[in-house]
Amino acid sequence: MANTTLSLIFDTDSHFLQIMNHCPKAIHIHEEGPREGFQIEPGPIATADKVKFIEALANTGLKEVQAVSFVNPKRVPGMADAEEVARLIRRKEGVRYTSVWLNLKGLERAMQTPLDVYGRLQISASESFSIKNTGKNTQDTLIEQRQIIEFCMEKNLSIDSAIVMTAFGCNIEGEIKEEKVTQQINLLMNLLKEYDMRLPYLRLADTVGWANPRSMDRVISSVQDKWPELSLGLHLHDTRGTGLANAVVGLSKGIEHFDSSCAGLGGCPFAGHKGAAGNICTEDLVFLCEEMGISTGVDLDALIECAHMAEGIVGHALPGKVMRGGSLSKYKNHTQGF
Amino acid sequence: MANTTLSLIFDTDSHFLQIMNHCPKAIHIHEEGPREGFQIEPGPIATADKVKFIEALANTGLKEVQAVSFVNPKRVPGMADAEEVARLIRRKEGVRYTSVWLNLKGLERAMQTPLDVYGRLQISASESFSIKNTGKNTQDTLIEQRQIIEFCMEKNLSIDSAIVMTAFGCNIEGEIKEEKVTQQINLLMNLLKEYDMRLPYLRLADTVGWANPRSMDRVISSVQDKWPELSLGLHLHDTRGTGLANAVVGLSKGIEHFDSSCAGLGGCPFAGHKGAAGNICTEDLVFLCEEMGISTGVDLDALIECAHMAEGIVGHALPGKVMRGGSLSKYKNHTQGF
Repeated sequence: MANTTLSLIFDTDSHFLQIMNHCPKAIHIHEEGPREGFQIEPGPIATADKVKFIEALANTGLKEVQAVSFVNPKRVPGMADAEEVARLIRRKEGVRYTSVWLNLKGLERAMQTPLDVYGRLQISASESFSIKNTGKNTQDTLIEQRQIIEFCMEKNLSIDSAIVMTAFGCNIEGEIKEEKVTQQINLLMNLLKEYDMRLPYLRLADTVGWANPRSMDRVISSVQDKWPELSLGLHLHDTRGTGLANAVVGLSKGIEHFDSSCAGLGGCPFAGHKGAAGNICTEDLVFLCEEMGISTGVDLDALIECAHMAEGIVGHALPGKVMRGGSLSKYKNHTQGF
Repeated sequence: MANTTLSLIFDTDSHFLQIMNHCPKAIHIHEEGPREGFQIEPGPIATADKVKFIEALANTGLKEVQAVSFVNPKRVPGMADAEEVARLIRRKEGVRYTSVWLNLKGLERAMQTPLDVYGRLQISASESFSIKNTGKNTQDTLIEQRQIIEFCMEKNLSIDSAIVMTAFGCNIEGEIKEEKVTQQINLLMNLLKEYDMRLPYLRLADTVGWANPRSMDRVISSVQDKWPELSLGLHLHDTRGTGLANAVVGLSKGIEHFDSSCAGLGGCPFAGHKGAAGNICTEDLVFLCEEMGISTGVDLDALIECAHMAEGIVGHALPGKVMRGGSLSKYKNHTQGF
């Protein structure tokens, strides 16, 4: 595992070792709430509200905020104002403003905006999911990834990461074996090698909420065993309540990069709402990490304010927990902290 | 740890060892939804609905259901029909129907019903919390526990467990040191010794939602080191979203007993609702365990039906996740299971 630390305070007490000896000292959070959430809402959400929310998030200490997706406005009307949002954000120094695009057309749109644009590769561990979701099997996906690599080379755009979708299971193929995950990663690695490139960072995605602590352990260990120097990130959905438990397994295996959504945007606590399957909630993740002594760089109370702002913007309750339970800061300021 | 098993399938692959080598093969769940949930609702909840829900829970495979609390009906009007609920339940063989009582008067009321009544001791790790919550410091609490022991001896009632409240932190004293927890347990142990009794089972309660995976690890390890033969249980609140993550630490340390609430009853996803701090959700816990290969004896799909029933009874959304995300059974029946 790259960049993991063995903090001395854990070494002094064997009790901590099992959980803590591979935990990173700090994590990096990629905040995906504005894109995940506003994309799924029946809307319309005012452009000004989106911008206000993104700016508030950037003021909490978060260093990477996914602002919009460049997708077909006919299919995703909530993102029709993507260019406008991107243009209106007053940027904060040191913060990356990212976006999602699904093909070269989307990538070209993204490049016309002031957002931070990078090349990103993707592959699905479940080929059946890939065919259903994108119409492409693994071979066709690789052809598309090759086009992205060549486009990025032409445009002098660096490829900053790859993502493996459905790395823990999918509704068609069921549980995914770790060998399948490493096999798909290998295909991307080999493709990059053809261009004398190497993969700097890989995200494992629990796209449809199948992961559990045991499968997390299994898949992450396999990837780490095979590529000990590869920096890993987790993109977890809290579809069935196991999101933070899965994140803790990631932490205990030294993972330092997490995608998450402020207030759990993208999910919804109401029955029948298609958005029930949101990402893990950013402020809950921040709370968890900070309580465990893992630094996030985020002002939790400021982030909780953002979560309330998000509820105000979408006009209904969101699934985050700490935004209701509250942080512990007001108790710890006058008591002996951890 | 009592009764932990080292399943062979984990031994064959070192990847599983870190998380799984101390996990129990099976857990026992104490379902507290009817009591936790219906106590907190502004109500009124029809007695017949309470009974119907308790009976449905007992039909899912759950072996212990907390039906009611015997408390002052002026202070907790939602429990004014406790005796009637207890009388109306059509009991299922092999299921324990438990109750909460806070003093000898409540215990005497419980004994007049057909419920399964046992002596239970309690102490708080935070003395300040105890004083605020019950008006008793540790010394006065011990006097009361002595009265309970003597009452139970007189009535031939066995003492089945003790609970340590605020074992991981409290809003007055902040983080609780593990030495404080073992010190308070010691007081109860010594008290029981005076009567030639020993404690069969101890529950550690995160009463106000302070626990995190690291403090779980710390406190549980300390208790296990001191009393390796003591059977432990966890009573966790999901106040800040870390409930299941904390439960996984408990599992990884061999803990086999968990309190939880169907649908997350007792909590509520709405801002400003005092019930935000519910127990961990039973069906989410069942999902997590079964996916990890830990047997719960519960039919998850039947339990999800109970969760929907609970929402119907209280008339608003409840915080459970699997009840919206759905179990994986329909996908696994025609795919290769884990």
